[in-house]
Amino acid sequence: MPPVKIMYLNPVADNPEVDRLFADMARAYKLAGTEVHVTALPRADYPFSHIEYRTYEALVTGGIVRAARAAAREGFDAFTIGCFYDTALHDAREISGAMAVTAPCIASCEIAASLANRFAVIVVRSKCNVQMGANIREYGYGDRFSGFYEIGLGVDDLQRDHAETERRLKAAGRRAVDDGAEMIVLGCTMEIGFYKEMEAELGVPVIDSAIASLKRAEYAALLRHQCGWVPSRTGSCEAPTEAEIARFDAFGGSRPVFGSRIVVEAS
Amino acid sequence: MPPVKIMYLNPVADNPEVDRLFADMARAYKLAGTEVHVTALPRADYPFSHIEYRTYEALVTGGIVRAARAAAREGFDAFTIGCFYDTALHDAREISGAMAVTAPCIASCEIAASLANRFAVIVVRSKCNVQMGANIREYGYGDRFSGFYEIGLGVDDLQRDHAETERRLKAAGRRAVDDGAEMIVLGCTMEIGFYKEMEAELGVPVIDSAIASLKRAEYAALLRHQCGWVPSRTGSCEAPTEAEIARFDAFGGSRPVFGSRIVVEAS
Amino acid sequence: MPPVKIMYLNPVADNPEVDRLFADMARAYKLAGTEVHVTALPRADYPFSHIEYRTYEALVTGGIVRAARAAAREGFDAFTIGCFYDTALHDAREISGAMAVTAPCIASCEIAASLANRFAVIVVRSKCNVQMGANIREYGYGDRFSGFYEIGLGVDDLQRDHAETERRLKAAGRRAVDDGAEMIVLGCTMEIGFYKEMEAELGVPVIDSAIASLKRAEYAALLRHQCGWVPSRTGSCEAPTEAEIARFDAFGGSRPVFGSRIVVEAS
Amino acid sequence: MPPVKIMYLNPVADNPEVDRLFADMARAYKLAGTEVHVTALPRADYPFSHIEYRTYEALVTGGIVRAARAAAREGFDAFTIGCFYDTALHDAREISGAMAVTAPCIASCEIAASLANRFAVIVVRSKCNVQMGANIREYGYGDRFSGFYEIGLGVDDLQRDHAETERRLKAAGRRAVDDGAEMIVLGCTMEIGFYKEMEAELGVPVIDSAIASLKRAEYAALLRHQCGWVPSRTGSCEAPTEAEIARFDAFGGSRPVFGSRIVVEAS
Amino acid sequence: MPPVKIMYLNPVADNPEVDRLFADMARAYKLAGTEVHVTALPRADYPFSHIEYRTYEALVTGGIVRAARAAAREGFDAFTIGCFYDTALHDAREISGAMAVTAPCIASCEIAASLANRFAVIVVRSKCNVQMGANIREYGYGDRFSGFYEIGLGVDDLQRDHAETERRLKAAGRRAVDDGAEMIVLGCTMEIGFYKEMEAELGVPVIDSAIASLKRAEYAALLRHQCGWVPSRTGSCEAPTEAEIARFDAFGGSRPVFGSRIVVEAS
Amino acid sequence: MPPVKIMYLNPVADNPEVDRLFADMARAYKLAGTEVHVTALPRADYPFSHIEYRTYEALVTGGIVRAARAAAREGFDAFTIGCFYDTALHDAREISGAMAVTAPCIASCEIAASLANRFAVIVVRSKCNVQMGANIREYGYGDRFSGFYEIGLGVDDLQRDHAETERRLKAAGRRAVDDGAEMIVLGCTMEIGFYKEMEAELGVPVIDSAIASLKRAEYAALLRHQCGWVPSRTGSCEAPTEAEIARFDAFGGSRPVFGSRIVVEAS
Repeated sequence: MPPVKIMYLNPVADNPEVDRLFADMARAYKLAGTEVHVTALPRADYPFSHIEYRTYEALVTGGIVRAARAAAREGFDAFTIGCFYDTALHDAREISGAMAVTAPCIASCEIAASLANRFAVIVVRSKCNVQMGANIREYGYGDRFSGFYEIGLGVDDLQRDHAETERRLKAAGRRAVDDGAEMIVLGCTMEIGFYKEMEAELGVPVIDSAIASLKRAEYAALLRHQCGWVPSRTGSCEAPTEAEIARFDAFGGSRPVFGSRIVVEAS
Repeated sequence: MPPVKIMYLNPVADNPEVDRLFADMARAYKLAGTEVHVTALPRADYPFSHIEYRTYEALVTGGIVRAARAAAREGFDAFTIGCFYDTALHDAREISGAMAVTAPCIASCEIAASLANRFAVIVVRSKCNVQMGANIREYGYGDRFSGFYEIGLGVDDLQRDHAETERRLKAAGRRAVDDGAEMIVLGCTMEIGFYKEMEAELGVPVIDSAIASLKRAEYAALLRHQCGWVPSRTGSCEAPTEAEIARFDAFGGSRPVFGSRIVVEAS
Repeated sequence: MPPVKIMYLNPVADNPEVDRLFADMARAYKLAGTEVHVTALPRADYPFSHIEYRTYEALVTGGIVRAARAAAREGFDAFTIGCFYDTALHDAREISGAMAVTAPCIASCEIAASLANRFAVIVVRSKCNVQMGANIREYGYGDRFSGFYEIGLGVDDLQRDHAETERRLKAAGRRAVDDGAEMIVLGCTMEIGFYKEMEAELGVPVIDSAIASLKRAEYAALLRHQCGWVPSRTGSCEAPTEAEIARFDAFGGSRPVFGSRIVVEAS
Repeated sequence: MPPVKIMYLNPVADNPEVDRLFADMARAYKLAGTEVHVTALPRADYPFSHIEYRTYEALVTGGIVRAARAAAREGFDAFTIGCFYDTALHDAREISGAMAVTAPCIASCEIAASLANRFAVIVVRSKCNVQMGANIREYGYGDRFSGFYEIGLGVDDLQRDHAETERRLKAAGRRAVDDGAEMIVLGCTMEIGFYKEMEAELGVPVIDSAIASLKRAEYAALLRHQCGWVPSRTGSCEAPTEAEIARFDAFGGSRPVFGSRIVVEAS
Repeated sequence: MPPVKIMYLNPVADNPEVDRLFADMARAYKLAGTEVHVTALPRADYPFSHIEYRTYEALVTGGIVRAARAAAREGFDAFTIGCFYDTALHDAREISGAMAVTAPCIASCEIAASLANRFAVIVVRSKCNVQMGANIREYGYGDRFSGFYEIGLGVDDLQRDHAETERRLKAAGRRAVDDGAEMIVLGCTMEIGFYKEMEAELGVPVIDSAIASLKRAEYAALLRHQCGWVPSRTGSCEAPTEAEIARFDAFGGSRPVFGSRIVVEAS
Repeated sequence: MPPVKIMYLNPVADNPEVDRLFADMARAYKLAGTEVHVTALPRADYPFSHIEYRTYEALVTGGIVRAARAAAREGFDAFTIGCFYDTALHDAREISGAMAVTAPCIASCEIAASLANRFAVIVVRSKCNVQMGANIREYGYGDRFSGFYEIGLGVDDLQRDHAETERRLKAAGRRAVDDGAEMIVLGCTMEIGFYKEMEAELGVPVIDSAIASLKRAEYAALLRHQCGWVPSRTGSCEAPTEAEIARFDAFGGSRPVFGSRIVVEAS
């Protein structure tokens, strides 16, 4: 079997430190036969270090679908959008051709619902709750969701002081468990790197949503390779025709699609 | 009372014929003391004559929030996004400051639910059903919604052959009424100009969603002027700070926000 | 355009002081071209100063539909039922002919949902919660509703000691905001006259439901005048025939429909 | 054990023929130790032979709560409101003291859901569907409900030509079963007298909703006698105080509460 | 009328003390003309004194359907499964022929919803909440359910120290009422014997779920005797054919179905 | 990495032909490093060739949890229950220790929802619809589910006449697609072997639920190996203690757990 190819897109401006963090994660968690490209958006057009606000999400939405389109044309099997808002998930799915698209929230909910009956989500700030809650309900996990717990740190601060972040994550997790959560989901991909310590502390499974989305993309890629299962393209899944895309020059011309790319090769 | 100011944004490339259509509608349906600016997106960046696909919606989403931001800073009281997908409604609401934001689908559902218990929506193609249906449910009108009826014309064709469009709209409306719809909503703003003929034919109210969204925006503007009611800016409604917006240069620099603008003045 | 005509019915026994309170409100908040009739039920048949109990609601339900019927025949464009239970809303809508019918709870929910994602309702006593909660869910706002907060005053006491009422409303509003409400709705029309002070104190929009229902009625009236949109009369919206109404003498004979009426003229 | 006492109220004008029909039913279906009073409203105040319209329901709502109040004070154990709209059910429950209140739709849904997974309701006209559907969902049976089937006869015509009514009921039942209904509920108490013939024809259970409501009332009465279970009177179940009722003279003075009464004694 | 026959199955290993407890309850609460058989499963095959875990439930599920099948063939009119998990309710209903099947949770919810708008459930341990909550929602009572309150005693301990159990039940009931419950349901059949003391203490109705399920079974049995209403056997209610049952020897051969049986005769 | 170990349990009596069918499937679709044990229940205790009825499901439920318990103790990483009813899924999850448990319906819904917005399920007979529909809703996929389509063959007949089965599956699939399904799920694991032909015919993805459940189990096993994610054992996920299991001798003694086992080794 040739390697399965996955793109992990950070839907923010390229940032070497952050890119490397996710590339290291990919290297550690992918299967041997999987190739992962960790990418980010070009800073010139998408200057955001985080997309905590809908406003910023809206401003990168075009960049995400351009990336999804480009990845599909490069032959990727699966694509994940590295933000727990699952920004532009439905949009990217429309234009992804035979490539599957997933994202951290939906990937984490699936895993959590298979390992427990009630899971909590730890968010950076309660600002996120309404939008993420609507997503969780739309995905069908409303009855399994036990609540949001905030740590009061912005996304950009999560990797600044690891001890402080860990302390806050553990405290939020403890509150969640005390309220009846049987399991924890980390509701921001930048909360990466803490789940094992939290599991040791709390005694319940803790899902790192960045890893979850990578693994779900890999699962989708394997389903394509082995079973031939690819996205439907009928009904609401119909994509615009190539003729119309060309007529509109929908995806623009020469401006770069990706701001950075680290290739983690299959071994 | 000074005039209330409303912006009606066509979230597609500027097109003089289309712009005029909506300006004429605004002139005919606004209150005397209302000023309406009919705008569209700049063709260079947003070359779409329609946004029937999520892909195109995603590519104009940034343009819509830029327009909402600009309108708020110009002092508009209310803003409506002229597409029945209500594209970027929640995003635009975050960045709209003291300006209310509405859109055709939500505006039409409110009116329809106040005048009947079961309403149908006539769409251009069944491609729309899943996304629009999710919106209708999210807005809370799922129990009052009796189904989609498609006419099998693309958005760009609706104003080509008026007789044919009218024939198809009436036929779809008839099917809806025969199935139990007590009222009809026209599920595309380009289905403008037909509702009176349909009402005469079908004997039930028919909501033109472009007019509905204009009137809902005007209603919101009056609520601001008379009651002081403006969007909340706490919790999930919190907008990014001006400092951060400036730091990111989030809304870009010199590129134009609007591709066209027709001012319909208060009289 | 001739004036639009609205009836604001207090569904309790006529009371000059209360009637004047709502007439003053109408004068302050209506548009220039709007004529408002503030009415109440005749005390002889409907001796209630409040309808906090379903029992009392049931006993005035007949009076409300008689009033709606009479208003429609007088040519009113819109009618609102001035109690946050929205008592007899669906009943009055059936018999209202071409006149739209609204009420405070539904009118306030619409506005609140357009200005925030999570709103709380301040009630007189928790007795109200189950019935009002069922209404809010039935109207489709269950997911946007963040809870009831009671002030522990009966309806008849709200306008007795303004300072005390204001103190309690502000305290309840503070609890709601601390729990995550992004906006407040005043869940009793007799909580009139306090919303601006509350907004100043709480920093979030506060909807006065009496004003909201007046403005929603006016909006409906304008939609009728300008767009021709009136209630559907098919399916579940079918009204009894005039022949049958006459045969039953359904609306009784000579007993008065209204106990009082203050006309606030268009200017 | 002393007899349990049940009132079966026809919420329409007294009519000897109709009253007798329900008294005969009560005699045939009650337990030996049960006493049933079949009553109707006084024609002078409530001149309706049917309440197919919300308007008429609204006009008898006051009469129903007056009857419930009177029955509770006479010492009845349970009370049923003989119309499949379950008109004023929640209202009557508030003022019923220690007397339980039920009604045909809710009583039938309970039985149907215990004997099958999918039941259909046969209505007189599709006019009823929205209101009855909302009730069925509110009662919690939405997922078990397979649809309405109309026979196209008014309530007043159901007992005119028995052969025709039976023919239409069987035809509607057949359509329901062919669509997957596993059981039938007769959605009008005046569809009384046909269920056995329908069961023989259709091969599925058919619930006569008049009988169902009588039996449910009797069940409630027995639960009171044997277990002491009576309605809660706290929270939303709180009734107005006797002092306030007296102050308002809420239930009026001398006008009669019942238009007729047939006593079916315990044997 | 011949006696109606009900089986009350304790779905655990036979235990003389426990069996007697339920037989005494049946004697005290049944109608005179009702015969009740209190049974339990044979200890050899089903050695469980409680089924607090899904694992144990799974291991007795086969025993419950065998018992339901046997009871139906013995001519019982109704059958109840004496565990508040309502274990195997839907399974037993399929194979029960003309015998109705009920269970404590569903029987109690029906009664509670008819006597109050908000009821709480007192459980042994919060372990139960997810499964019981799913049942309550599936039965359609989600909107009327106000929460679980645990007493922190295992099922086997409930009848050990009556004073302690009563103390804990009252305390849990008090918390529920303080939180807004208008009524209490005892969420374990082994919480039998305490409801009257709780009612006296709390001032709200308290449903003993063992009694409720007995009475609901008796109600079902009476509906069969008097109205002929028995379970549907079409669609999803279709049972396997006798031919296939015989071919598989589905219900095994000689192993006993019941571990004990106390007959409480009609008087 | 050592091989991940999966058990695929056919929850029916062992049958060499059927066992081989699933072993061949496992060999064809597993990853190289995966070891799969295809097992079935012992015919002596579980004599069923199919479990189309709840009755039969109930009779094998004990066998499924015994198998799950045994597999967990043998060190399997994941376990799947090879019936589209997902029989005993929640029960098996409680007793599975560190082993994940999945099943065909839930595994297929996850995949389908990631590749399309509306999927249909093809069932053997409409008998299945209510139970499977309840599962699909409980799993959270109710809004994505477009309907059941039956082929009118029993489970035991699906592999008899392949041409006939294929013909019926294609016809049902065609009806589903014509009604708006964007994707098909085969709602019986014995519908194995046909999905590719159906995809070729229908032009939409078709999920073979047996394969889906195997792959989902493998995905879960990899998540355990690579991320350490195993089932929660707190709250509702708490298993009985080993001490109590031993005291009850809950899993019986010497009777065999498996009726057959084919080992498909890692390569």
